[in-house]
Amino acid sequence: MDLATLIGLVTAIGLLGWAMFSGSDGQASIFLDWPSLAIVLGGSAASTLIAFPLKHVMNAGRVVRNAFFARSVSPGELIQNMVGYAEIARRDGILSLETLTKEIDDEFIVKGIQMAVDGSDPELIEQVLTSELDAVVERHNQGKQLFTTLGAYGPAFGMIGTLIGLVVMLKNMDDPSKIGPGMAVAILTTMYGALLANVVALPLADKLQLRSDEEVLLKTIVIRGVMAIQSGDNPRIVEQKLRTFLSPTQRKELADESQAAAA
Amino acid sequence: MDLATLIGLVTAIGLLGWAMFSGSDGQASIFLDWPSLAIVLGGSAASTLIAFPLKHVMNAGRVVRNAFFARSVSPGELIQNMVGYAEIARRDGILSLETLTKEIDDEFIVKGIQMAVDGSDPELIEQVLTSELDAVVERHNQGKQLFTTLGAYGPAFGMIGTLIGLVVMLKNMDDPSKIGPGMAVAILTTMYGALLANVVALPLADKLQLRSDEEVLLKTIVIRGVMAIQSGDNPRIVEQKLRTFLSPTQRKELADESQAAAA
Amino acid sequence: MDLATLIGLVTAIGLLGWAMFSGSDGQASIFLDWPSLAIVLGGSAASTLIAFPLKHVMNAGRVVRNAFFARSVSPGELIQNMVGYAEIARRDGILSLETLTKEIDDEFIVKGIQMAVDGSDPELIEQVLTSELDAVVERHNQGKQLFTTLGAYGPAFGMIGTLIGLVVMLKNMDDPSKIGPGMAVAILTTMYGALLANVVALPLADKLQLRSDEEVLLKTIVIRGVMAIQSGDNPRIVEQKLRTFLSPTQRKELADESQAAAA
Amino acid sequence: MDLATLIGLVTAIGLLGWAMFSGSDGQASIFLDWPSLAIVLGGSAASTLIAFPLKHVMNAGRVVRNAFFARSVSPGELIQNMVGYAEIARRDGILSLETLTKEIDDEFIVKGIQMAVDGSDPELIEQVLTSELDAVVERHNQGKQLFTTLGAYGPAFGMIGTLIGLVVMLKNMDDPSKIGPGMAVAILTTMYGALLANVVALPLADKLQLRSDEEVLLKTIVIRGVMAIQSGDNPRIVEQKLRTFLSPTQRKELADESQAAAA
Amino acid sequence: MDLATLIGLVTAIGLLGWAMFSGSDGQASIFLDWPSLAIVLGGSAASTLIAFPLKHVMNAGRVVRNAFFARSVSPGELIQNMVGYAEIARRDGILSLETLTKEIDDEFIVKGIQMAVDGSDPELIEQVLTSELDAVVERHNQGKQLFTTLGAYGPAFGMIGTLIGLVVMLKNMDDPSKIGPGMAVAILTTMYGALLANVVALPLADKLQLRSDEEVLLKTIVIRGVMAIQSGDNPRIVEQKLRTFLSPTQRKELADESQAAAA
Repeated sequence: MDLATLIGLVTAIGLLGWAMFSGSDGQASIFLDWPSLAIVLGGSAASTLIAFPLKHVMNAGRVVRNAFFARSVSPGELIQNMVGYAEIARRDGILSLETLTKEIDDEFIVKGIQMAVDGSDPELIEQVLTSELDAVVERHNQGKQLFTTLGAYGPAFGMIGTLIGLVVMLKNMDDPSKIGPGMAVAILTTMYGALLANVVALPLADKLQLRSDEEVLLKTIVIRGVMAIQSGDNPRIVEQKLRTFLSPTQRKELADESQAAAA
Repeated sequence: MDLATLIGLVTAIGLLGWAMFSGSDGQASIFLDWPSLAIVLGGSAASTLIAFPLKHVMNAGRVVRNAFFARSVSPGELIQNMVGYAEIARRDGILSLETLTKEIDDEFIVKGIQMAVDGSDPELIEQVLTSELDAVVERHNQGKQLFTTLGAYGPAFGMIGTLIGLVVMLKNMDDPSKIGPGMAVAILTTMYGALLANVVALPLADKLQLRSDEEVLLKTIVIRGVMAIQSGDNPRIVEQKLRTFLSPTQRKELADESQAAAA
Repeated sequence: MDLATLIGLVTAIGLLGWAMFSGSDGQASIFLDWPSLAIVLGGSAASTLIAFPLKHVMNAGRVVRNAFFARSVSPGELIQNMVGYAEIARRDGILSLETLTKEIDDEFIVKGIQMAVDGSDPELIEQVLTSELDAVVERHNQGKQLFTTLGAYGPAFGMIGTLIGLVVMLKNMDDPSKIGPGMAVAILTTMYGALLANVVALPLADKLQLRSDEEVLLKTIVIRGVMAIQSGDNPRIVEQKLRTFLSPTQRKELADESQAAAA
Repeated sequence: MDLATLIGLVTAIGLLGWAMFSGSDGQASIFLDWPSLAIVLGGSAASTLIAFPLKHVMNAGRVVRNAFFARSVSPGELIQNMVGYAEIARRDGILSLETLTKEIDDEFIVKGIQMAVDGSDPELIEQVLTSELDAVVERHNQGKQLFTTLGAYGPAFGMIGTLIGLVVMLKNMDDPSKIGPGMAVAILTTMYGALLANVVALPLADKLQLRSDEEVLLKTIVIRGVMAIQSGDNPRIVEQKLRTFLSPTQRKELADESQAAAA
Repeated sequence: MDLATLIGLVTAIGLLGWAMFSGSDGQASIFLDWPSLAIVLGGSAASTLIAFPLKHVMNAGRVVRNAFFARSVSPGELIQNMVGYAEIARRDGILSLETLTKEIDDEFIVKGIQMAVDGSDPELIEQVLTSELDAVVERHNQGKQLFTTLGAYGPAFGMIGTLIGLVVMLKNMDDPSKIGPGMAVAILTTMYGALLANVVALPLADKLQLRSDEEVLLKTIVIRGVMAIQSGDNPRIVEQKLRTFLSPTQRKELADESQAAAA
C-alpha cells in the first residue's frame, strides 16, 4: 500500500472541501454544477480517447492501481535473494537452482535463472531479459502519458467551458443582477480543469513514473545478478556489484539486516 | 477502424454542442460567427502553409486517415507469420520462400525476404531495411508535426481575433448596450482556437505518434525476423527473440493462440 | 519558388486585413498606430540584436530568401546524377570523372568527386565532406534561431507596450470617455506582437528548418554517393543504397522517371 | 555555510515584508489570511505527496540542509590530497596507503584507495566507484525534483484558491462594497503560490542541482585520482590530469597555494 | 567591441523611453516608482542568489563584459596561424616551435604546442586540451544560466509586486478616484519584470551562449591543429582539415586573404 498517494489525495480533497464549505458559509453546493463537470471530465476524456488507442484507456484502471500499491519487495531484499542464489549455484552447481525456481514467484527471476540453468549463451540471456525490461518501461510509459495527457486537456476544456459561459453571459447583459452568478458558473469549469490536472492527473503521472523507475531498478538488479550467477562469480563480489545500485541509506539498512542474519 | 478516435471525436462534439445548446437556452447560433471562424481556421492554416512545404499540407488528408484506421495485422500475428517463414526456410531451404513472397501483401516483408533469398549480404539487408524504417519514421513525423503546428497556431489566431474584436469594441464604447455582445463575439475566436487545438489538432497529433510507434514496432519485428531467417536460426529461437517485443498481455494472447493452433 | 510560403503569407494578410476592415466598418485605420508599431518592431529587433552578433542579423535578408525559394534539384534527380557518375567511373575509370566536374555547378559534389579522383583516403573524404555538412547545419540553425528569437521577443514587447499604455490610461481616468480608446491603443501592441510572431517569425523559422533538413538530405546523398563511387561499387547497388533515403512517394516518382528514361 | 542561500532568503523576505508593510500603510496583516495559506501550502504539499513516495518527502528536511551548507572541501584541496596520496604510493609503495585510510573521513576516497590497495581489478574499481557516483546523482535528483514539483503545484493551488474565492464573491454581488475585499482575499492565494514557487521552491531546486554538480565534480576527481594512483602514474601527471577539472580561477588559486606550500 | 549588444541596448532603451515620454505627454516620471523597482530588482536578485553560489553571482560583472567585447581573433586568422606553426614544425622540426611559444599570447595554444614539443603522448595532449575545453564550456554555461534564471525570476517578482499592489488597492476601494492610479502603480512591477527579462537578462544570456560557441570553435581549431602538427601532417592538409570548421563565407574571406598574402 502506498500511503503517500492515499494521504495526499485525502488531504487535498479534505482541504479544498473545507475551503469551499467555509468560504461559502456552508453552501458548498454553489461549487457544484453538473453541466460544467460534464464538459471538463467528458471533454478531456474524449480528447484523451482521440489521442490514445482504446486499449490504453481501458487499462487506465489497472494503471491507477499501480499508484496506490507499492512493490512488495525492496531492492535490499532482492539483492539478498540474488546473493543467496549465487551462493547455492557456487556451492551445489548452477543446476541446483532449477528446483529453486518453483518457489520463486517473480516470473522475471525464474525466466533469467531458467535460461542460466539451461546453459543459454550469456549474450542471449542479457538480450532476452533486457528486451523484457524495455517492454516494461514502454508499458509504464504509456500509463504515465495517459495521465499527463489528461492533465493537459483538463485545463484546456476548463477554459473552453469558461469561454462558453462567458459568451452566454455577455449576450444577456440586460439584467446586471445575473452577471455575477453567470460568471461564477463560467469560472467553475476552469476550477474543475485545474483540480483534475493538479490534484489527480499530474501527481498520479509523477507517481507512476517513480513506480516505473523502481521496477526498472529491481529488474536491473535481477539482470545483473543472473549474469553474475551465470558466470560463476564469487557471491561476495555479486553482492558488492549489486549494492552499488542502492542509495547509502538503503545500503546501511541492508548491512544491518545482513549482520542480524549472520548473528 | 480505430474506434477510439471516432468515439472521442463524437463524444467531444456532442458534449460541447449540448453545453452550447442548453447554456444558451436553445439559441446555439450565438456561438457561430463566420468571420471569426474564417480568421481562426484560415489564419492558422495560412501560417501552417508558411511553415511547411505545400506537399506536406496536401498530404494532410491522407495523414488524417491514419488516425482513424488501425493496422490490420497485430504484432502477435506478425510474429507467428515470421516464425512460419523461418520454419519453411529451415525445412525446405531458404530458396523455398521465393514462391511464398507472391502471397504476402506487405511490401516490406517481401523486400526483406527477397533480399535474403537472393543471398544478399546480411549487413546490406539490415542497412536497406533500416533505412526504409527511418524513412517511414521521418514521414510519420512530418504528418504529426503538421498537426502539432496547427495546434499551436490555432489558439494564437484565436487570440489575434479576440484582440481585433476588443479594439473595435473599445473604440465604440459610446453605446454601453453594445459592449456585452461585442465582447461575446470577440471571445468566440479564442474559443474556436482552443477547440481546434484541443479537440482536433493535438489529439490527432498524439494518435499519429502512436500509429508511428506501432508501425515502427511491426517493421522492427520484420527486420529482426528476416535477419534471423537469413542466418538460419532455429524457429523456436526466432520466436523467443521476437516475442520480447511484445507486452506481457500481448505475449499471453499469442501463447493462447499458439496453443489453440497446436491443438 | 516555394509557393506555400507565398500563398500562406498572402492568405494570412488578406484574411486579417479583411477582418479588420469589415470589423471596423471600413475604418481599418484604427488598427494602425505608428508608435505602437515602433515599440514592437523596434524593441524586438533591438533585443534580437543584443542576443545575436551583428553579422547574423544582417544576414537575415539572405536567410529569408531561403524560405521563399526551394532547391532547384530534387533528391530523385540527384540520385540519378550520382548513379550516372558511378556508371562513368566504372566504365571509363574514376579519372574520367575529372573532365565531368567542370559541368557540375554544385560545388559540394565537385569537391567530393575531385577528392575521389585525386585518390584521397576514403576516411579523409568522408571527414572533409561531413565537416562541411555540419557547417551547413550550423549556419542554417543560426538563421532559424534568429527568427525563433524574434518570435519570442515580439509578443514580449507587445505586452510591454500594452503595460505602458495601461499605466498612461489608468493615471488619467478622470475622463471616462477616454478609457475605451486608451485601452484600444494599449491593446494594439499586443496584437502587433502576436502577428509578428505567428504570421512572420515562427512560421518562417519552421520553414527554414525544413529547408535545412532538405539540404542535409541532399548533401548526405552526395556523401554516400561519392563514397560508393570511390570504392568502385556497382552502380545498381549505389542506386539501391541511395534510394533508401527517399520516401515511398519519391521512390515511385524516381522509378517512373527511370523507366521513362530507359524507354 | 552557504551564505548566498541565507542572504538571498533574508533579502527576499525583508524586501517583500517592507513592500507589504509600506504599501498597506502599516497594516501588513491584510496580506495574511490563514485559510488561503492552508489551501496553498496544504494543497501543494498534498499533491507533492501523491507524486512522490512518503520516504522522499520525509527526507525533504535533510535535503534542504544541503542547500544551506556548502561542502567543506574545495576541488583544489581535494586535488592536492589526491596528489599527496599518489606521491606516497609512488615513494613507499601502494600498500603504504592502507594506514592512511584511517585518517581520511571521506568514505568514498577510503573505499577507492582500499580497493586499489587490495589489488582489485582497475575495471572493477572504476565500475564500483562510478556506480556509487550514479547513485549519488540519482538521490540528489530526487531531492531536486521534490522542490521543482512543489514549485509547480504552488502556483496551481494558488490559482485554484483564487477561483474558489472568485466564485464565492461573484455569487454574492448584491453588496458592491464587499466586492473589493472579497477579490483581495481571492488574490492572496495566487500571491502565496507565487511566493512559495519563486522565493522558496524553485531557487532551492536550482541550488540543490548546483550542490549535486559540485559533488559529482569532487567524486569524479576522486575516481580519476584513484585510477591514476592504482596505475602508478607520476604524481605530476596525476596533478596535471586532475587540474583540468578546475576552472582557470580555481587553477590559479591552487597554483598559489601550491607555491606557498613549496616555499 | 561587440557593436550589436551596444546598438541593441541603446535602441531598446531609447525606443521605450520615447514611448513612455510621448505616451504620458512628457510626464515620464509616472513610470518610475522606487518601491516597485526595489521589489523586482531586489527580489529577482535575491532568488538568483538562493539559486546560485555567491561566487557565480559576484562573477556576473565579468561575465557581462563578455557580452560586450568580441574575441580579438577570427577563426580564419587562427587557422592561418596554426597552419603557419605547422609549416615551421615541418621545415625546422617540431622543437623549433619552442622559441615561438614566447610570442603567442593565447595560453591555450602555448600549452598545446608545449606539450607537442615535449613529446607528450598524442592521447594525453588531446585529453588535457579537451578537458580544458570542457571546463571553459562549463564556466560559460554558469554565466549564461545566471541570466536565464534572472530572466525567469524578473517577471515572477513583477507579478508578485502587482498582486501586492492589487490587494492594497482592492482593500481600499471606498474612494473610486484612487482605483486608477493604484492599479497603474501595481502594473508597474509587471512592466519592470518584463523589461528586466526581455531587454537585459534573456538577450544577454543568448549572446553569452554565442560567445561560448565562438570560444568552443576557436579552441576546437587549436586542438585539431596541435594534433595535426604533433603528427607531422602536411601543412596543406592541416589547412584543409581546419577550414572545414568555417562557414562558406568565412572560407571565402580566408581564401582572399590567403591569396593576398601569397601575392
